[in-house]
Amino acid sequence: MEELYIGVDLGGTKILAGIFDSDHHCLASEKTKTNQEDGYDAVCGQIVETIHAAAELAGIDPAKVNGAGIGAPGSISSDESRVLFAPNLGWRDAPLKADLEAELGCPVWLGNDCNVAATGIHRLELEAKPNDMVSIFLGTGIGAGIITNGVFLTGATRAAGEVGHMVLDPDGPVCGCGTRGCFEALASRTAIFNKVKSAVNDGAKTLLMDAGDDSVTRIRSGKLRRAIEAGDELAAAVLGETCLYTGVAIANLCNLLNPEVVALGGGLIEQLQADMLPKIRDAALERIMPGARQVRIMATALGDAAGITGAAILAHDHT
Amino acid sequence: MEELYIGVDLGGTKILAGIFDSDHHCLASEKTKTNQEDGYDAVCGQIVETIHAAAELAGIDPAKVNGAGIGAPGSISSDESRVLFAPNLGWRDAPLKADLEAELGCPVWLGNDCNVAATGIHRLELEAKPNDMVSIFLGTGIGAGIITNGVFLTGATRAAGEVGHMVLDPDGPVCGCGTRGCFEALASRTAIFNKVKSAVNDGAKTLLMDAGDDSVTRIRSGKLRRAIEAGDELAAAVLGETCLYTGVAIANLCNLLNPEVVALGGGLIEQLQADMLPKIRDAALERIMPGARQVRIMATALGDAAGITGAAILAHDHT
Repeated sequence: MEELYIGVDLGGTKILAGIFDSDHHCLASEKTKTNQEDGYDAVCGQIVETIHAAAELAGIDPAKVNGAGIGAPGSISSDESRVLFAPNLGWRDAPLKADLEAELGCPVWLGNDCNVAATGIHRLELEAKPNDMVSIFLGTGIGAGIITNGVFLTGATRAAGEVGHMVLDPDGPVCGCGTRGCFEALASRTAIFNKVKSAVNDGAKTLLMDAGDDSVTRIRSGKLRRAIEAGDELAAAVLGETCLYTGVAIANLCNLLNPEVVALGGGLIEQLQADMLPKIRDAALERIMPGARQVRIMATALGDAAGITGAAILAHDHT
Repeated sequence: MEELYIGVDLGGTKILAGIFDSDHHCLASEKTKTNQEDGYDAVCGQIVETIHAAAELAGIDPAKVNGAGIGAPGSISSDESRVLFAPNLGWRDAPLKADLEAELGCPVWLGNDCNVAATGIHRLELEAKPNDMVSIFLGTGIGAGIITNGVFLTGATRAAGEVGHMVLDPDGPVCGCGTRGCFEALASRTAIFNKVKSAVNDGAKTLLMDAGDDSVTRIRSGKLRRAIEAGDELAAAVLGETCLYTGVAIANLCNLLNPEVVALGGGLIEQLQADMLPKIRDAALERIMPGARQVRIMATALGDAAGITGAAILAHDHT
C-alpha cells in the first residue's frame, strides 16, 4: 500500500496543508487564513480542517496517512512535542503534537517553520547534496535554517539561526526585538511597509497607497511587484534597500559559514525574485571573501510549498 | 618515557614556540620577532631556532619530541600540509609541513592560527566541554575559531570563520579587504590606529602620539592601556567604539550560532580586558535574543599562550 504523509506549514496569517507521497511529491494542498485571535483550540481545529480539505482534494482517506509533520512559527521543545513560544500566534508551551495526534489518529512531528522549509529545499530541490547551506525566508519577518557539517545548526539552547536579528547597522531603525538595525528591521516586508508609510507621511506619492486615500495600511508582496512593474519610484527605491541589506546579510553568512548554497524563499522572494535576485547577488558577491565566493545564491523553486514539503519529509523521516 | 610536544604560533610579527607535556602544560617557551621580509626559507629557519631555544630552556633534546603542531596565519590545504595563502607573511602554497619535518626530524601538523588558538582554549581551559563555542582574537586583525555541534566549522571550501569580515556598518570605513564597515575595519588595533591618527591629524592631543612629535606611527596594546590608565580621553573614546562593535559582533554570532561560550583573546584583550570586557558584555547582551542570552562571554586566561597550547594539542591528537 502506498505511503502517504501530511505536511503542514502553520503561520501567523495562513495555514497550508498538503498530502505527499513517499517521494515527497505533493498530491494536493489547501490553504486557510489563520484565525489566531480565536485562540489555540480554534487554530488546532483549523489545522485539522485544512488537512481534511487537502485529503479530500487528493481523494484519500485522512485516517490512512502514515504520519504528519508540522512547521510552526516559533521555538519547539527539545522532544519536539510542544511549541514553546510562538509570538505571532500568541502561544506559549502549546502541546501541539499530542493534541493533533488525538484529532488526526496518526503520529505527528513538530519542527521550527524555517528549519522545516529549509528541509524541503535541501532534501527535495537540492537532493540533500549541500553539506553547508543557509536558507533565508524574507516575508513579514526574516527567518533562516542553517545546515553546517551536514546537520541543522541548533546551538546550545536551540536558539540558533536568528538571522533576522543580525545587526547590520547599529544606528538603524528599531526592530520588534528592541535592538537597532537588525536585518529584519532593515529588509523585511514590515521594514518596507514602515519606510513607505514614513515617505507617504512626508508627502511622497506611490501606487502603494490605499485606493482613494493618501494612507498606506498594508503592502502585500504582489502589490509591491505590480507597483514596481508600473514604474513606481518609491517602491523601487525601498525594494532596492531591501536587496542591499539582504546582500550584506548573505555576505556576512558566507564569510562566517562558507556555505555551498544560499537559498532564498518567503513571500517577497516568491513575488519579486526576478527583480531582487540580481541585486541581492551583486550586493553579496561584492562583500564575500574570495575563498567563499563560489557560493550559489538561488531562489527556491518550491515557493510557498517549501514548508509543507519539508513538513511531510519530517514525518517521512520519523516513520 | 615522557611524551613531549612542540607547539608553535607563527604570526606576521612574532613567532612563539613552546615545549609541552602530554597534559598540555607548557614546560618552557620562547619568542622571536618574525623576519618575514627575509622570505620563506629564512622564516622556516627562525621557526626551528625558536623551537631549539625553547627546548634548551626546557632542558630537553628537541630530537626526542613526539611531534610538532603549528598554527599559521592563513588558509591551510585540506591535507594540512601546506600554507595556501598567508598575506601577512607573503606566502603562497608553502610546503611548511615537509620542510619543517626535514629540519626537526619529527612529524609536523599545520592548522589555521585562529582555529589552533581556539583549540587551546577549548581543550585546556574549558576542558572540551562546550559543544558550541566561538573564540574571537582581537589584534592587528580580527580572527575567530568556531565550533558548532562539537566540531570546528570549516565550511564548503575551508573558508568559514571570517568573523573579521562581517559587515557591521555598510557605510563604515573601508577594510583591507575592500569592503566598507567590516568588524575588522571598525574594531581591530589597525582600526584604532587609523581613528587615532585621523583625530591627531585633525588637531587632537593624546598620549598615544610619538614622544617629542605630533604624529602617531604605532600603537601597541600596552601603550593604549597606559594612555587609558592615565586618563587619555581620545584613547578611551576610541577603545569604547572598539568595545561597542565587538559587542555587536558577539551579539550577531550569538543570535546566529547560540554558543555556550564566547572566548576573547588577542593582544588587545590581553592588555585591556579589565576595561574592555564589561563594556563588550553590555553591548552584546543588549542585542542578544532572550533564548541565547545564557552565553558566557569571557577572556581567555591563556593569553598569548593559547596558540602554542592549541598547536601542541594538535600534535598530541595526531600522534
